[in-house]
Amino acid sequence: MEQVFSYNHLHAFTQDVFIKIGCTPDQASLATTVLLSADLRGIDSHGVARLSGYIRLWEAGRINTKPDIRIVHETLSTAVVDGDSGLGLVVAPFAMQVAIDKAKQAGTGWVSVRHSNHFGIAGYHAMMALQQDMIGMAMTNASPLVAPTFATERMLGTNPIAVAIPAATQPPFVADFATTTAANGKLEILQRKQQEAPLGWIQDKDGVPSSNPNELKNGGALLPLGGDREHGSHKGYCLGAIVDIFSAVLSGANYGPWAPPFVSFLPLPADPVGKGLGHFFGAMRVDAFRPADEFKTHMDTWIGRFRNATPAEGQEKVLIPGDPEREMEAARRKEGIPLLEPVVKDLESIAMKFKIDF
Amino acid sequence: MEQVFSYNHLHAFTQDVFIKIGCTPDQASLATTVLLSADLRGIDSHGVARLSGYIRLWEAGRINTKPDIRIVHETLSTAVVDGDSGLGLVVAPFAMQVAIDKAKQAGTGWVSVRHSNHFGIAGYHAMMALQQDMIGMAMTNASPLVAPTFATERMLGTNPIAVAIPAATQPPFVADFATTTAANGKLEILQRKQQEAPLGWIQDKDGVPSSNPNELKNGGALLPLGGDREHGSHKGYCLGAIVDIFSAVLSGANYGPWAPPFVSFLPLPADPVGKGLGHFFGAMRVDAFRPADEFKTHMDTWIGRFRNATPAEGQEKVLIPGDPEREMEAARRKEGIPLLEPVVKDLESIAMKFKIDF
Repeated sequence: MEQVFSYNHLHAFTQDVFIKIGCTPDQASLATTVLLSADLRGIDSHGVARLSGYIRLWEAGRINTKPDIRIVHETLSTAVVDGDSGLGLVVAPFAMQVAIDKAKQAGTGWVSVRHSNHFGIAGYHAMMALQQDMIGMAMTNASPLVAPTFATERMLGTNPIAVAIPAATQPPFVADFATTTAANGKLEILQRKQQEAPLGWIQDKDGVPSSNPNELKNGGALLPLGGDREHGSHKGYCLGAIVDIFSAVLSGANYGPWAPPFVSFLPLPADPVGKGLGHFFGAMRVDAFRPADEFKTHMDTWIGRFRNATPAEGQEKVLIPGDPEREMEAARRKEGIPLLEPVVKDLESIAMKFKIDF
Repeated sequence: MEQVFSYNHLHAFTQDVFIKIGCTPDQASLATTVLLSADLRGIDSHGVARLSGYIRLWEAGRINTKPDIRIVHETLSTAVVDGDSGLGLVVAPFAMQVAIDKAKQAGTGWVSVRHSNHFGIAGYHAMMALQQDMIGMAMTNASPLVAPTFATERMLGTNPIAVAIPAATQPPFVADFATTTAANGKLEILQRKQQEAPLGWIQDKDGVPSSNPNELKNGGALLPLGGDREHGSHKGYCLGAIVDIFSAVLSGANYGPWAPPFVSFLPLPADPVGKGLGHFFGAMRVDAFRPADEFKTHMDTWIGRFRNATPAEGQEKVLIPGDPEREMEAARRKEGIPLLEPVVKDLESIAMKFKIDF
């Protein structure tokens, strides 16, 4: 049961909601564009389906819609940004812009962010660098749901990494992935469909591999990319840890099990070790390494060669990171964005609460 | 069948060999220290067992032991280094030092390297940053042995990533891992023991999962971290691709299937797209983000908290990246380095060839 809405319709509605909770029109528009970039790119778990989650965080006093987002420390190529508890959806583009501005001067820019909240999809922020002929990077820590290798305790978020790299005539290379076997959104889909998860995605509260997609509610945990030790889960654990440290220990945000949960019904961890959630952004001017045209022409060669790698039997072709999302965006801008019934109901009750049309 | 040798014995011998092939005493000493750091840390596949491989590359005219290693382009926070076909074991520390020097001035330093060769273990280079209260990063592309998700063709190397992060009283966090399910060295061990590999490590020439550790000789391929699509192999493919692009497309080295193979009996790929192998290094001053003592104290908290995460049944404790290698190094410095019989025979024939004692 799905209903299809145009991008413009969802954008106007979501922007109104952000204005209702106190955002300026500019910030409401930006937050909406960032949020809906997930729906456009087919990462439905991170889009408008989360709008009610952001509102509940605001109701719980955990989001400041008039934040004083500012640089608190900087060098030629680095900065720390304090998000003043603002929406991650506006804090992140601010910080990524600082990284881009630093890169213009110093070749590269690196910004660690504290006191923020969930920032939507990492890919949006990384892709901001592309128009400038820069490589963009974005990562964030997140609600602790992931057990390190050999542990039962949930110590890390799904901690995604995005890297966007420009090309000349080819579309850009855009990788954007959780450092777990499967993102939490994939589990939510299985829960709705009442289907089993493949082994290697989750474990139960005792650390035993499980195929029950509801295991998180029973004290289970998501597993780092690799799934188990034999298949390299210690590497996924390393990746998640690096994202956590760059995002939160460098900036002064909460790290590891202290990361504030996205869902407002969970209490904030006691004895915080920092402020809010953390992000990390990077921008590298490609001409800080070699002439931009030369680099982008070689990226065309790279992409073309990989796209034409011999496919395995039963597979049509090798994908370039970003291909599926770009194709999805083209289709959804034209044909609209399908929303599941519970999401539509959710948006309808938001409309009622704020007395606006949906 | 193993024989144990002291670190000093192996160091003196290896240094002599590097001098015999034309290295200056300083460069021979440095190359030896880098190479043997793998044996000390228990990554036996990358240590003195590879000495004969380097010599065969030199005999094939693919290593220049009097290289003019130089910066060919730079900005405040970046540089491109040309290794002039020198041993990666000396090119890499040069480039990492450039990254560290840039970070002293600009907060961070990022160096992409072309025209190099195999550089030993990535962890050695990343760890150079630790004494300076910097975070160090090192990565490299490598012989194409890995098939991207959905492909049968070998397009990427095992492309490792190392990240070293300083702490105060705790030992540093040192992650160093191949972006494949299992490094090639793990397969070599199974080949020697005539044991099967777990599914998810390799596929046969048609892209079918295989447990035969000799599959690479039959046209098979290693698999990206994740193993298969359902377990996130597209993420491992993204990671390997990012390492390839940062190391080789940014610098002007050979990328993807054009990366020169480490084994001298394989011909160099036709129509090279760049020069030699590529690496990428990064150094970030922690005090470019927050006071170093503050950062390192929080790293102590991070490490302590993760080390004390509740272990799963049957597991003793959660490991911090770098723990096993550091413990191995302490033991091997004291008790010596065990070498397998074929490695000892290999070193004996090198000794004979160069008329030196082993």
